[in-house]
Amino acid sequence: MPASSTSARAERPEAVRVALLGHGNVGAAVAELLTTRTEEIAARAGVQFELAGIAVRDLRRRREAPGAADPALYTDDAKGLVERTDVDVVVELIGGLDPARTLVEAALRAGKPVVTANKMLLAQAGVELSEVASANGVDLLYEAAVGGAIPVIRPLRESLAGERVLRVMGIVNGTTNYILTRMTDDGMDYAEALAEAQELGLAERDPSSDVSGADAAAKAAILAGLAFGSDVLGTTVAREGITGIRSLDVEHAARLGYVIKLLAIAELVDDGPDVSVRVHPAMVPADHPLASVRGAFNAVFVEGESAGELMLYGRGAGGAPTASAVLGDLIDAARNLRAGAHAPAPRRHQAAVRPVDDLRSAFYISLDVVDRPGVLASVATAFGTHGVSIRAMEQDGLGTAARLVFLTHSAREGDVRATLDALAAIDTVVRVGSVLRVIGADDGAPMRVAGGHARRR
Amino acid sequence: MPASSTSARAERPEAVRVALLGHGNVGAAVAELLTTRTEEIAARAGVQFELAGIAVRDLRRRREAPGAADPALYTDDAKGLVERTDVDVVVELIGGLDPARTLVEAALRAGKPVVTANKMLLAQAGVELSEVASANGVDLLYEAAVGGAIPVIRPLRESLAGERVLRVMGIVNGTTNYILTRMTDDGMDYAEALAEAQELGLAERDPSSDVSGADAAAKAAILAGLAFGSDVLGTTVAREGITGIRSLDVEHAARLGYVIKLLAIAELVDDGPDVSVRVHPAMVPADHPLASVRGAFNAVFVEGESAGELMLYGRGAGGAPTASAVLGDLIDAARNLRAGAHAPAPRRHQAAVRPVDDLRSAFYISLDVVDRPGVLASVATAFGTHGVSIRAMEQDGLGTAARLVFLTHSAREGDVRATLDALAAIDTVVRVGSVLRVIGADDGAPMRVAGGHARRR
Repeated sequence: MPASSTSARAERPEAVRVALLGHGNVGAAVAELLTTRTEEIAARAGVQFELAGIAVRDLRRRREAPGAADPALYTDDAKGLVERTDVDVVVELIGGLDPARTLVEAALRAGKPVVTANKMLLAQAGVELSEVASANGVDLLYEAAVGGAIPVIRPLRESLAGERVLRVMGIVNGTTNYILTRMTDDGMDYAEALAEAQELGLAERDPSSDVSGADAAAKAAILAGLAFGSDVLGTTVAREGITGIRSLDVEHAARLGYVIKLLAIAELVDDGPDVSVRVHPAMVPADHPLASVRGAFNAVFVEGESAGELMLYGRGAGGAPTASAVLGDLIDAARNLRAGAHAPAPRRHQAAVRPVDDLRSAFYISLDVVDRPGVLASVATAFGTHGVSIRAMEQDGLGTAARLVFLTHSAREGDVRATLDALAAIDTVVRVGSVLRVIGADDGAPMRVAGGHARRR
Repeated sequence: MPASSTSARAERPEAVRVALLGHGNVGAAVAELLTTRTEEIAARAGVQFELAGIAVRDLRRRREAPGAADPALYTDDAKGLVERTDVDVVVELIGGLDPARTLVEAALRAGKPVVTANKMLLAQAGVELSEVASANGVDLLYEAAVGGAIPVIRPLRESLAGERVLRVMGIVNGTTNYILTRMTDDGMDYAEALAEAQELGLAERDPSSDVSGADAAAKAAILAGLAFGSDVLGTTVAREGITGIRSLDVEHAARLGYVIKLLAIAELVDDGPDVSVRVHPAMVPADHPLASVRGAFNAVFVEGESAGELMLYGRGAGGAPTASAVLGDLIDAARNLRAGAHAPAPRRHQAAVRPVDDLRSAFYISLDVVDRPGVLASVATAFGTHGVSIRAMEQDGLGTAARLVFLTHSAREGDVRATLDALAAIDTVVRVGSVLRVIGADDGAPMRVAGGHARRR
């Protein structure tokens, strides 16, 4: 039996030598932790780390950058660094598919545990890489890939290992949550909020991967794998972004007692085994825990059969928070390496992903119409014909025009789409505006009406 | 190197045989999971469990209870069950110090991992028992002891193993949070809310262990051990309960932009290594994540140097949620048992606990005074003499009497106590009412004034 690696009486263990691939925001923060806090980490966690090398693309630029590590540590030969016999663990922070994938695979095949924050890599090649890790008896850990510093992966993989998870809903993209929060709290419009996020460095100059939901979709695929063992490719996850959200939608939502959030959802459909994995903006009840996740914060909300509702909340991005998650994984990998064990891998299987059209949800639908008698009748007929039942309606006058806002009862998404097509064909309907799914609006639950204060939960 | 215990290709492993001590709410839920969901858990987690026996006090009553397990499983010889050679893991759900302590120790000495939800045992004897576990190379796991189903222990012990934790603040008692929520949301007074909680089974007939803060104090001691490695006895934790909270305090708090919560706090003082561990009601800013934790829900808020702010939220009690946490630990223990490893134990050391008088905090203080000229001057003098600076004051007329409510700047607790003594001695001060610490009210932060909507964060 291996002695306790953390026992105070144990001899000082040999250092665990770390190869760092990539030296951006997170890489620099990890390097700093490993070099300046070595003794503190050893005292706290019982693992002595040593930075063996840092692979970068442009050797000179990195060496001369402010806050750079010992120049001798840098190399532009990542492959060589991974293969060095004095490297015990590899931290991959390059991002993207190539060359990250080749390097991670080479490390695993050489029996070296890998810690990565690369959501794209995991969403596209996570299944294959996990198999390589398993076959070689080493860890592939990725706590930092979803929700930055928030413990999400380990709780799902370990704490809830025996739990029948029913649904995971995450606010997993800080950029879009920041934009939606500014629109909600401060009445900004989308363009204004995006411009501010870009100024603050919270959004890229080309924000498409965030605002289109692509980043969240990769994370949804990772969450589906952890919660249900479902193999889902990030690129195949159904997604809608936030570019169509208007200030008016945000206002209507608030009046009805909701907040608009971009959610990454993975859930069992009809009690399983089929799953649904998707990303879209949704109206979340104002008193739902996810509604209070503001600014660039992230949160993952889990519903389990026995555990009930759980939420894990914190900083979803940034150098230091992400480095903290990487360090937690590094300690885990080092302890396992020493014990000759490795972290449990969840069982994976080909996912039966239910098409979005088959899902049921309540919907918020806004229509611009000509304000004349009979409009509501023809609109109501379009809903009725397709079996979509209306739970609440509100009308705003707009001069000769009017805006109708509907909340539906739970309806099949395909039927809602057919209704929208029929609505668009009505000549008094000027425009079908926003269409948003409504979370937690089960049939029969009392609803807050504008001006009222009824609580739904 | 041990093969992956969860590999789909592995041979069906031998069953792990579980001894269950105690068959109350949680015990019954654990027994049900282990007997009715055996195959599902095996498929999901790769561990086949078998219930070896259930130790109860009254054999006949249990066997005949509705939902009882196979009668042959019950025994009233707990010691004998623990010692049986066909028992691999022991789950202790008896509660209290004795005989739980003797049984847990016997199991650990026999090389059997123990899973427990017994916060009292851990708060009083956790250090010694962890040493016994370490010396015998087996796990002592207790995720269920704090925050029920919420992953709290494992994230603190593993995800944040390398993190410099600065502060942990928990809403860890569902009974008191339910009472405070009803007082806040529905204007109930304390007695009314307590009576309702008792009716709903959320409070005991004798509620003292909850409302006095004793239960939360035991959990604060456990959190201090995990976050800082500080050995603190639960019974020595400074605590105040909620019995003195009046409806008026709740209303004042709301007007000032706060919510009153009972918090278990463990934090570094003056950047460490000294710590403060305590339980008391506090005014929490309405937009702080802890403020949205309502009803019987629990949450633990963690501030780390690199990780920033984290919150773990969920159901803090109840048979099924607590059983879910026990099952997660059981799976962990079984995997480690098979790998010949055990969970990392945090380093522990004698804690230097700072006396409460030395701590600094902002305070809310309410005074009933005689409404006549000069009162405020004499009251203000009492504050000034003891170096306690006033940040805001409000006066409510009460006929010939008046109520003064003060918010102070951050002040030394000992100075505030001296101020209170001086205030009580002023003849125009009828009564010193509630005194509450204010969270997150750093000097200089703008404050929401009654009727205003200024945001503090």
